[in-house]
Amino acid sequence: MLGFGVVGAATYRILDQHRDELEARAGARIQVTRIAVQDPSKRRDVEVAAGIMTGDASEVVEDPSIQIVVEAIGGVDPARDLISRAIAGGKHVVTANKELLSTVGAAIFQAAGEAGVDVLFEAAVGGGIPIIRPLRESLAGDRVHRVMGIVNGTTNFILTRMSETGGSFEEALAEADRLGYTEADPSADVDGHDAAAKLSILATLAFGSTVVASDIPREGITRVTAADISAAHELGYEVKLLAVAESEGGRIAARVHPAMLPKTHPLAAVRDVFNAIFVEGENVGELMFLGRGAGGAPTASAVASDVVEIARNIVSGGRSPLSAGYARVAAIRPPDEAPVRYYLVLSVADQPGVLATVAGVFAHQGISISSVRQEGPGDQATLVLITHAAGEGRHQATFSELESLDVVKEIASKMRVEGTSEA
Amino acid sequence: MLGFGVVGAATYRILDQHRDELEARAGARIQVTRIAVQDPSKRRDVEVAAGIMTGDASEVVEDPSIQIVVEAIGGVDPARDLISRAIAGGKHVVTANKELLSTVGAAIFQAAGEAGVDVLFEAAVGGGIPIIRPLRESLAGDRVHRVMGIVNGTTNFILTRMSETGGSFEEALAEADRLGYTEADPSADVDGHDAAAKLSILATLAFGSTVVASDIPREGITRVTAADISAAHELGYEVKLLAVAESEGGRIAARVHPAMLPKTHPLAAVRDVFNAIFVEGENVGELMFLGRGAGGAPTASAVASDVVEIARNIVSGGRSPLSAGYARVAAIRPPDEAPVRYYLVLSVADQPGVLATVAGVFAHQGISISSVRQEGPGDQATLVLITHAAGEGRHQATFSELESLDVVKEIASKMRVEGTSEA
Repeated sequence: MLGFGVVGAATYRILDQHRDELEARAGARIQVTRIAVQDPSKRRDVEVAAGIMTGDASEVVEDPSIQIVVEAIGGVDPARDLISRAIAGGKHVVTANKELLSTVGAAIFQAAGEAGVDVLFEAAVGGGIPIIRPLRESLAGDRVHRVMGIVNGTTNFILTRMSETGGSFEEALAEADRLGYTEADPSADVDGHDAAAKLSILATLAFGSTVVASDIPREGITRVTAADISAAHELGYEVKLLAVAESEGGRIAARVHPAMLPKTHPLAAVRDVFNAIFVEGENVGELMFLGRGAGGAPTASAVASDVVEIARNIVSGGRSPLSAGYARVAAIRPPDEAPVRYYLVLSVADQPGVLATVAGVFAHQGISISSVRQEGPGDQATLVLITHAAGEGRHQATFSELESLDVVKEIASKMRVEGTSEA
Repeated sequence: MLGFGVVGAATYRILDQHRDELEARAGARIQVTRIAVQDPSKRRDVEVAAGIMTGDASEVVEDPSIQIVVEAIGGVDPARDLISRAIAGGKHVVTANKELLSTVGAAIFQAAGEAGVDVLFEAAVGGGIPIIRPLRESLAGDRVHRVMGIVNGTTNFILTRMSETGGSFEEALAEADRLGYTEADPSADVDGHDAAAKLSILATLAFGSTVVASDIPREGITRVTAADISAAHELGYEVKLLAVAESEGGRIAARVHPAMLPKTHPLAAVRDVFNAIFVEGENVGELMFLGRGAGGAPTASAVASDVVEIARNIVSGGRSPLSAGYARVAAIRPPDEAPVRYYLVLSVADQPGVLATVAGVFAHQGISISSVRQEGPGDQATLVLITHAAGEGRHQATFSELESLDVVKEIASKMRVEGTSEA
């Protein structure tokens, strides 16, 4: 094992306490013989066998008696180098490292293919939720068109609290903080970086070609207001941070942003720190996988299942199916072309003809309006619109044009709408 | 292929239309060379290659050039004999046959183990929902404590309609019938037989020992009334037909019955013909798998993924993990011992001391009351109670004792309560 933080320690505990069952399932002995950590002398909550801690990771990745390396360090470096050396030495690898896979996954899997070893990563997305293996194997008989996920527990907790209490983003973030759901720097969560890394992995598996995290446009939840959520409720929607990837004509569009979802959509009912991944396949239709997307024990349960699979492969001489998506670079659809719907609140002048002027702008950009409600009167006059599906770029052009109108004071709020039958 | 009904034809269509992709994933050619049906001359909607239809199933199960048999006939006979002959001839088998597996699964898997062939059945439970492979592999690193599923789409549609319209069971059944969601004889669905067969398979995989359908006490939804559902709503619950299996101290309890579930429970939001399986594991916590539990295309998508897995195994010389649960007979916990909670409506005499008398009966049986509401007055006086978790047997004894009281006119309604933290 490399690393002995929350996930590493929980993995050790499972491999130790459930050893008889795991060995029976694997048909092989499974023993943790070496654990590399920065400071082997540090006191830890989980007791390990005497003498197996080391401060030198080379003693793991270069020990010829070790067959499986569990990487539980996280981050790109030094994990990349250690995993590469383990693979070069013919070791199989289990990792939960989403940062690594979403940036240099292709290189890792190429090396694994050449060395003839398995690299499994069930825990990299959705913690203990079985989503990697289903995408890789269970849907091998189908074509996936779309993956839409709530893949960050912290932001889902924050949005759930805002929805249930009517409070602000800042209040909900403070509560998440008190409960220990946030990192020291919350930006990886609230700005959508974590969700984009996970989406990169999901999209790569679902569509069979590599989508790297830097290909994914990203918008976080810091600008979601209590007013947005209350407006969503009035319309029968919930607000969720969604990671969406679609395949259309051989090109892939992926994006992370807050969106309104109809309350009847299965993702709308995913509360608190739960994660869920919604998959649409040509034949299978709609599927959803829900569970605890983080935490030591759930994540470690996925790591342990990967260890069992590899141990079984070692005994049988088999190999797990390659994660073939990493062998091919995805054709990315320009974000501007992705069809989206928008909810929009405009503060407008309270005078005749405003609606006609505004509607004219949408018509000019070729966007149909699904519904419009005019509120007023006086200085507070507003238009609340929902558009039909049209390109992201056309929507952005429409917003610019609207902002240049004298009769539009400001775009008071805007948010994408997902999970309706048309988009 | 054996059989060419809805699932068989949809499987053929996928194997034919997606052939290039499936062969790329399998690393092998996949070709349907023979399809056995009762009447080969019958006109069919799906066109098949000339000359491959036969009226003689022996031409499938005894053809030495055939490596994989897809059984899509359903029912125990003649599927049992045909599959046994295929296995004896060294052929791998893919089946969606829940009746077969839930009755003689152990014999099938013993034969498969001896012959060294794979028998895969992802489509047997939940149609296209990947649940078999996750239970068999993804949770191999964990201990499952409980499986709770909505595994019958027809009854879930009926209960959803009753919940959303306030109508009766008969009205909702008639609507399900109009929409083609019912069988000619609806009893397999509404009496819970179908759910019990699927639960047998889920429990066997989750707990690693064989639970046959006849071990599973079963109660259908025909006696669920509009009043039950409206009472559930008042309490913040939905009514669902649940298939529940639990492991406790090495013994397994399984049962199928309608139950009230809190609206915040993920299963409560599963609507219409959707199926969902909720799994609780020691480390992974709570997981849910949702999707379309029936229909040709979703089911066929799961069959096709099994075909790809076997083809890959044939190429690599590997084998899929055995469905080990079928090698061991489960210790069944007597249904009377299973801890349950009940919602109960009693019509009572409107006189002082009734609550004390009724409460005394519960106390006598060692059952705590979680909440009680007294309604009245006059001839319509009722007590609405919810119990804390206690044995099914003690509850039944309590019901008998209550019915023998002069002050209790009748038990107007009773239903189990699931998905709360205590049970």
